[in-house]
Amino acid sequence: MFAKLCGDTYVLRLEIGEEIVEAIKSFCARENLLCAEVSGIGAVSEATLGFYNVKSKEYSKTVIGGPLEMVSLLGNVTQKDGEPYLHLHASFSGKDCNCVGGHLNAAVIGVTGEIFLRKIDGEIGRRTQEDIGINILDI
Amino acid sequence: MFAKLCGDTYVLRLEIGEEIVEAIKSFCARENLLCAEVSGIGAVSEATLGFYNVKSKEYSKTVIGGPLEMVSLLGNVTQKDGEPYLHLHASFSGKDCNCVGGHLNAAVIGVTGEIFLRKIDGEIGRRTQEDIGINILDI
Amino acid sequence: MFAKLCGDTYVLRLEIGEEIVEAIKSFCARENLLCAEVSGIGAVSEATLGFYNVKSKEYSKTVIGGPLEMVSLLGNVTQKDGEPYLHLHASFSGKDCNCVGGHLNAAVIGVTGEIFLRKIDGEIGRRTQEDIGINILDI
Repeated sequence: MFAKLCGDTYVLRLEIGEEIVEAIKSFCARENLLCAEVSGIGAVSEATLGFYNVKSKEYSKTVIGGPLEMVSLLGNVTQKDGEPYLHLHASFSGKDCNCVGGHLNAAVIGVTGEIFLRKIDGEIGRRTQEDIGINILDI
Repeated sequence: MFAKLCGDTYVLRLEIGEEIVEAIKSFCARENLLCAEVSGIGAVSEATLGFYNVKSKEYSKTVIGGPLEMVSLLGNVTQKDGEPYLHLHASFSGKDCNCVGGHLNAAVIGVTGEIFLRKIDGEIGRRTQEDIGINILDI
Repeated sequence: MFAKLCGDTYVLRLEIGEEIVEAIKSFCARENLLCAEVSGIGAVSEATLGFYNVKSKEYSKTVIGGPLEMVSLLGNVTQKDGEPYLHLHASFSGKDCNCVGGHLNAAVIGVTGEIFLRKIDGEIGRRTQEDIGINILDI
């Protein structure tokens, strides 16, 4: 990954083989970036999407084989237990252009990734809300 | 809804049962937020999407039953008649990960909603453009 | 196209018949806007989407007939050879709400386009990476 800080925004270029969620998380930890808005585009070789079942409190996972365009990547960086916490959703399309999407568990860059992290002043944590089984924004 | 102002950005957490468009609009009215860019992710129990037919000047509505991940929420807050005016588009996916999307008429939070409103300096109104039948940005 | 600069953000309204990629590029050239984040929504009469095949180093193109809601438009403005360089991905949906998306080659406004260009301080170029055949962010 290559990064450049421009004003309030880290512009990231991810390379073939890098896993997006882990790469962004590691970058944020290294830069001590704990509150940011994420947006991005790119192309991946594989994506793992999650769908949350609020009744069973479990994510079902679907692995989508690529190559795929990453049509949209949106989400945020907050913090939990002093570490950056990523919550990202994304959509992808293959050659037929049909979009699949969901909670982004992981995606591996297939061509390039262009991701913008806009720093937000302040701190936002996460806390586990037991009845729904997820880590919600602590605000 | 819970909100925290961080720098130029209101970070919102919406709770189960809240309707997104109405909740954001009420928040903006209360905070006198009349110009902002909106982005968000979350999970909903139901979404109502609109598709505009420029010939008939009517929106067709489609109600999509959930649960659904909200893969992308994008749009803006401007003003009309002194009130906040929301224009939002969104995409959603079910367990099969296939995305549906369109103009967002309404969506009810099913798990949580994480929505960022980035305040934009200045004022932008809306005016009705009769020949296409919609309220366009007044710029 | 009509535009208003609000703080760090150009708010654009595109009119029926305008092609989005060319319209934004011309605007950026005129305003000397060489680094920005792009987001937008709208409705188009036709879209041409690209899907990159990293093996053949070629984009396959798919023309999608409208009318279509533009559900998401995300990407960036950087520079190459002293000119603005746009990289945009977008998703669209028809009356059935199913989303199609990919690399945005072109799309013609069918109703209106509401596009936000957030200026980013600094400069980011593009350079051709021969082995993958595309112009990557030069960072």
